[in-house]
Amino acid sequence: MSPSDIRSRALHEPIPVAQYLFARLQQLGIRSIHGVPGDFNLTALDYIPKAGLKWVGSVNELNAAYAADGYARALGISALITTFGVGELSALNGIAGAYSEHVPLVHIVGCPSTVSQKNGMLLHHTLGNGDFNVFSSMASNVACDVARLNRPAEIADQIDHALRECWIRSRPVYLLLPTDMVEREVEGERLKQKIDLREPENDQEREDYVVDVVLRSLYEAKRAVVLVDACAIRHRVVREVREFVDKTGLPVFVTPMGKGGVNETCEQYGGVYAGTGSLPAVKDRVESSDLVLSVGSLKSDFNTAGFSYKTSVLKTVDFHSDSCKVRYSEYPGVGMKGVLKKLTERVDVGKLKREPGPEVVNEVPKPEGKAEKEEDIITHKYFWPRVGEYLKEKDVVVTETGTANFGIWETKFPANVMGVTQILWGSIGWSVGAAQGAALATKDAGDDRRTILFVGDGSFQLTAQEVTTMIRHKLRVTIFLIYNEGFTIERFIHGMEAEYNDVVRWKYTEIPEVFGAKDVRKFVIKTRDELEKLLSDKEFNDSDGLQFVEMWMPKDDAPRALKLTAKESAKTNAQLE
Amino acid sequence: MSPSDIRSRALHEPIPVAQYLFARLQQLGIRSIHGVPGDFNLTALDYIPKAGLKWVGSVNELNAAYAADGYARALGISALITTFGVGELSALNGIAGAYSEHVPLVHIVGCPSTVSQKNGMLLHHTLGNGDFNVFSSMASNVACDVARLNRPAEIADQIDHALRECWIRSRPVYLLLPTDMVEREVEGERLKQKIDLREPENDQEREDYVVDVVLRSLYEAKRAVVLVDACAIRHRVVREVREFVDKTGLPVFVTPMGKGGVNETCEQYGGVYAGTGSLPAVKDRVESSDLVLSVGSLKSDFNTAGFSYKTSVLKTVDFHSDSCKVRYSEYPGVGMKGVLKKLTERVDVGKLKREPGPEVVNEVPKPEGKAEKEEDIITHKYFWPRVGEYLKEKDVVVTETGTANFGIWETKFPANVMGVTQILWGSIGWSVGAAQGAALATKDAGDDRRTILFVGDGSFQLTAQEVTTMIRHKLRVTIFLIYNEGFTIERFIHGMEAEYNDVVRWKYTEIPEVFGAKDVRKFVIKTRDELEKLLSDKEFNDSDGLQFVEMWMPKDDAPRALKLTAKESAKTNAQLE
Ligand SMILES: Cc1ncc(C[n+]2csc(CCOP(=O)(O)OP(=O)(O)O)c2C)c(N)n1
Ligand SMILES: Cc1ncc(C[n+]2csc(CCOP(=O)(O)OP(=O)(O)O)c2C)c(N)n1
Ligand SMILES: [Mg+2]
Ligand SMILES: [Mg+2]
Repeated sequence: MSPSDIRSRALHEPIPVAQYLFARLQQLGIRSIHGVPGDFNLTALDYIPKAGLKWVGSVNELNAAYAADGYARALGISALITTFGVGELSALNGIAGAYSEHVPLVHIVGCPSTVSQKNGMLLHHTLGNGDFNVFSSMASNVACDVARLNRPAEIADQIDHALRECWIRSRPVYLLLPTDMVEREVEGERLKQKIDLREPENDQEREDYVVDVVLRSLYEAKRAVVLVDACAIRHRVVREVREFVDKTGLPVFVTPMGKGGVNETCEQYGGVYAGTGSLPAVKDRVESSDLVLSVGSLKSDFNTAGFSYKTSVLKTVDFHSDSCKVRYSEYPGVGMKGVLKKLTERVDVGKLKREPGPEVVNEVPKPEGKAEKEEDIITHKYFWPRVGEYLKEKDVVVTETGTANFGIWETKFPANVMGVTQILWGSIGWSVGAAQGAALATKDAGDDRRTILFVGDGSFQLTAQEVTTMIRHKLRVTIFLIYNEGFTIERFIHGMEAEYNDVVRWKYTEIPEVFGAKDVRKFVIKTRDELEKLLSDKEFNDSDGLQFVEMWMPKDDAPRALKLTAKESAKTNAQLE
Repeated sequence: MSPSDIRSRALHEPIPVAQYLFARLQQLGIRSIHGVPGDFNLTALDYIPKAGLKWVGSVNELNAAYAADGYARALGISALITTFGVGELSALNGIAGAYSEHVPLVHIVGCPSTVSQKNGMLLHHTLGNGDFNVFSSMASNVACDVARLNRPAEIADQIDHALRECWIRSRPVYLLLPTDMVEREVEGERLKQKIDLREPENDQEREDYVVDVVLRSLYEAKRAVVLVDACAIRHRVVREVREFVDKTGLPVFVTPMGKGGVNETCEQYGGVYAGTGSLPAVKDRVESSDLVLSVGSLKSDFNTAGFSYKTSVLKTVDFHSDSCKVRYSEYPGVGMKGVLKKLTERVDVGKLKREPGPEVVNEVPKPEGKAEKEEDIITHKYFWPRVGEYLKEKDVVVTETGTANFGIWETKFPANVMGVTQILWGSIGWSVGAAQGAALATKDAGDDRRTILFVGDGSFQLTAQEVTTMIRHKLRVTIFLIYNEGFTIERFIHGMEAEYNDVVRWKYTEIPEVFGAKDVRKFVIKTRDELEKLLSDKEFNDSDGLQFVEMWMPKDDAPRALKLTAKESAKTNAQLE
């Protein structure tokens, strides 16, 4: 009898590793697993339906990773399964994006058996050098925990630890599962106790101290504002922020990456702040504020219109998931969640001064008596506010890097709209996968939401086949494909007429049918008139299947904020010592 | 004046870094550059047409890497340009494949300026942690040289060194090019001297010694054979092997990865050897041989039908690019190229005994009086020998992981057919990119070759959009899509009826038109009759554009060798200590 048999004899309720793993994912709320089969993960896949989970069956691994990213943004966490080497490396860029943008994603990689590894066998999907750890080492750069599940006695602990890290730190983790471990036994009784996902509490004395310091600043301020950024969403303090804003009545702004984190129909909502990329009234209000309460900030170039903030540290309180900062005083280890809650509890509203922010409306430009032809064109200036009028409560809005990601700044969302963007990592093609994942997540959650995707023609081409997965799972997605003859965002950075910014003209609207759709609704929209008609069409608004809109926009038109940011980017790229 | 200005004053013929780099690529024979634009590489792209090179404009980075791989296999070397983070990581799986399979590929990554890097700026396409070296560190696992081009004075040397390494070691190299270095000046005069690509010569005394030892074994042997494997092709000794075989008249075999490395119409050609995966006569002949001269072997599982060789070290001479081995005597540092040449020079043919190998023919099964229905189905047993009759001299034949990669063992090639497969790395979807790259390479080389791709329906879906690049560059490609309702190879390994081995049914033949084709020829072929007609059609044979054949094969049919290998694989995966 081998020692491991003795171990499994001692188990109260022995269950296979794969069963344990998927049961844990199920407990976290995950209902669908993204990924692509490969011979090193096939036996594990057998356990997915047994755990009451759905296998998505993605078209390729990068798309699967993008989709898992979107699923996690919408549902809280997600899982992805790939095969050793070829599969996991294909997914790597998608995982890196999730890492960069604080998205919790469990990446499970099926790998050769521990026996093959020990023997250094020259297997397919290896570099031919007997190194079985090289891919997991690469992955460790974009994962907050890497677990190689090689020893049965440790596996349950490894899994629980990784899943907790994934959630708490809101970043990807990587689990390497050898074929011969899939059915080894672990203690099933552990499953009775769910994994503890509570964030570690702050030291109360320190937390009280910070709250006190912040409150004092707040009482002194005359024009305080709240600014909500990416990590407020990603580290799950949206509710805490809302309660604080509701109670204090302070004006609240979002950054581009924070968009969707605030109810934009509430009276205090003041718009999108991104330095010079902001509307003038927004810029004025935020930059003339004497106290900016900045929640979960992530000041990347594209989130700040090229680092163009004119706010001063001396007037800023920074709330982060694992630290706070009041002016130049730093409080490492004091996470924002506890602080924000306590601030709301303790703030004495009577002591606050409030100065309202600008009013936000969807300013759809009205005809200005231009030549009729010109009026007819769908410009960015016209389109994005118009989208604001089309959107409905609870919509999921996915935008792609390119003109869409900047245009959406000009769209005022109805209440409870979820904004899904990838502004820091900015990998094009991501949005098609992410839209699939987000739509699936809302379906899995039993929510009756529309998922609406705005994607450029260039970006769409990278991952177009992910539309087939939307079809496979009958998802409720409306795709607006911005047809503007190629890489407009790049044209504004460099090479306005360069050939490398062109793409081949596809028959975009035929894509869904070619990829298996039976009853897709498709539209080619070239003018404002056509668009107005479409957006006011009841069937279009209520559709619960797949819709595809090819929408023509000028090659050389871009949203205001993009023009500015592109100029800054070109400058930064060219900058010499 | 900054020190670098002084330096560039001292240059005789100052030219921009990008110009230097592309001129070097041009000198290596490269005519087209694969890749996808991104703002960190745009200014570099401007120099491509100036160097007389063509920009391919791939649809996504993984496809671009696959295509660059195919281009290099066909032309000798290739180049790929991606953008920092998002682009390069998307390509990483493709690069890993090139590394694993010894393909020389120059990967150029446009990255943020050295100034931004020094300042640790929070730029898009970063992990948000100020680490600008993390992606190049990952890349270093799958590159034989990594050069960060940060200091103008060193750049020309770095480039030349990397390109030489790439060629000599026949593996990818990685060049990181910051935006502010693109137009810095380097010494243009260096270009007058091409990079020395000659392989380092062996120490003559040692080489003579090895040649002597081998010759002695050879004169003793009664049934010697030559076995040509992957690295014979990848390390460029195909001609040396041919000359040796021609002079000695010894029977010659290929491994699956060595297929295409030998003229299969020559009298001495004996077939494909892959252990139990071989045809019985081949297996007998090779395994009963008293001396196997094995050239460039790479004994991976799928190259050996699951490690099923029955050849003994005691009867083997192993020739490698950087070492030789005669039985158990090892000769590190003695590369095969010099040894093979000298062997051919010195061998005394009179002293050789020769025992012929089996005759190789394309055995197309004849009707056997089965039910008519059954006869009609296109089976693997029938198809692959039939392909052998359809192929013409100089065709480029690309096969994908799946049934195709095993079926092609049964196809006897006409002379000068180039076989392109990725058996060790085995990343599905690769073949669509690789076919594009290979076809472009033959076009660039001015060769009038047909490129013929055999790809499974499952694999095709991963990278289908690469067809658009074939269209963009008017390439001469015929695609046989094996429509068998999903992942047949995986079914044979595990889960014959499992849902995860199904894929969505696409309207495959409409793909080219949706992706921009104006005059594609497309066919749906369901029976042998239809296939016979197609393969004997003159127009089909002579087409110089894109052709797309959707060919129906049974879901549960597979080539003989695949059935065997799949069984071995499943066993290896399940194996317990
Ligand atoms: C994977 C990846 N490759 C390349 C880039 C560089 N890039 C950023 S935006 C863009 C063009 C997007 O074009 P499109 O989707 O058509 O958007 P639009 O025309 O609306 O700007 C490119 C190539 C990237 N961000 N990610
Ligand atoms: C990138 C990648 N993902 C997953 C796999 C695992 N895999 C190997 S072959 C295969 C199925 C191929 O199916 P298909 O192309 O239809 O071939 P056939 O049906 O002819 O066997 C899969 C999923 C892989 N090798 N590479
Ligand atoms: Mg576009
Ligand atoms: Mg198939």
